[in-house]
Amino acid sequence: MKAEHINPFLRSVVNTFSTMLSCEARRGEITLAKSNTQSYPISGVIGLSGKAAGTVVINLSQEVALKAASAMLMTELTSLDDDVIDAVGELANMVAGQAKAELEEYELSVSLPNVITGGGHEIRFPSDAQPITVPFDTDFGPLLLVVGLMPVCEPVSA
Amino acid sequence: MKAEHINPFLRSVVNTFSTMLSCEARRGEITLAKSNTQSYPISGVIGLSGKAAGTVVINLSQEVALKAASAMLMTELTSLDDDVIDAVGELANMVAGQAKAELEEYELSVSLPNVITGGGHEIRFPSDAQPITVPFDTDFGPLLLVVGLMPVCEPVSA
Repeated sequence: MKAEHINPFLRSVVNTFSTMLSCEARRGEITLAKSNTQSYPISGVIGLSGKAAGTVVINLSQEVALKAASAMLMTELTSLDDDVIDAVGELANMVAGQAKAELEEYELSVSLPNVITGGGHEIRFPSDAQPITVPFDTDFGPLLLVVGLMPVCEPVSA
Repeated sequence: MKAEHINPFLRSVVNTFSTMLSCEARRGEITLAKSNTQSYPISGVIGLSGKAAGTVVINLSQEVALKAASAMLMTELTSLDDDVIDAVGELANMVAGQAKAELEEYELSVSLPNVITGGGHEIRFPSDAQPITVPFDTDFGPLLLVVGLMPVCEPVSA
C-alpha cells in the first residue's frame, strides 16, 4: 500500500479512542512488516472494498480489549464475553469507517467486522499487499494497527 | 444471515474445488453456530461489502492447505510458506468471488483476503450476524466453510 494512505487510519485511531473511549492514543513508529506476526491475542479485523481492497486490523491485549469495551459500554467488563467481542469489532469498524471517509477516491465500503482470538495467531496478507504496522501507546495500554490497502485494477461498476 | 443466501457459497466451494483444483468437494450438514470455534489451524478470510456486509471463511488443516496449494500451483508444496498462504487467500477469494456474482442484488465487492494461522484461533462474528457453518469432505481432506452476511441498512451511494 502507499505510505500516504496510512495517515487517515492513524488519525482515525487517535480520534476514535479520544471521542468514543475518552482515551489518548499516541502513535509510535511505522513499520513495513512482510509477514504480520500479531503480538497480542485479540484482533479486530475488517475488510474494505471498492476501488481498492484492504484490511484493517486492531491488535490488542485482553487488558486493553476489556478496558476499551468497558469504556464503550460504560460498564465494567472483566471477561472476554460477546459484549467485549462486539465492542472490539465495533472499534475496528469505527477506525475503518472514519478512515474510508478520507479516502473518497476509492469509494470504500466495509465488510462485517470479525474478532480473532487465540494467543499466537497470525494474520497474513497477500504477499504483494505490503501491509503497514503502527504501534500505539494508549492510556489503556499498547496496541497495534495493521493496514493493507491495494487499488483494484479491474473496472468497478457503479 | 438468511439461509437461502448460503447456497451460492456452497455451489462456489464445489465449483472452485472442481475447476481450479480438480478435487471433488461434498458438503455436509449446515449448522448455525453462535460462536465459531475454528476446528483447523488455517483460515482463509475475505470480507464482502456493498448493500450487504459479510465475511467468508475457509477453514483448513495444514494437510488440506498444502494439497490445495500444490494443486493450484501445480508443484508439490510441503511447508506453510508464502506461496501456500497466497493460495489459501486466493481460494477464499475465488469462493467469495463466484458467490457474489450470484448475489447480484447486494452489489458486493471483496476485501483483501487474509490468512489466519495458529492452532486454537477462533474467528468470531458480531453477535447479531448469525454465521452459517458447513463442513465439506473433499478428496484432499475435510474443511469448513463459514459465512456471515447481513444487509446494510444505511443508504449506499452508487
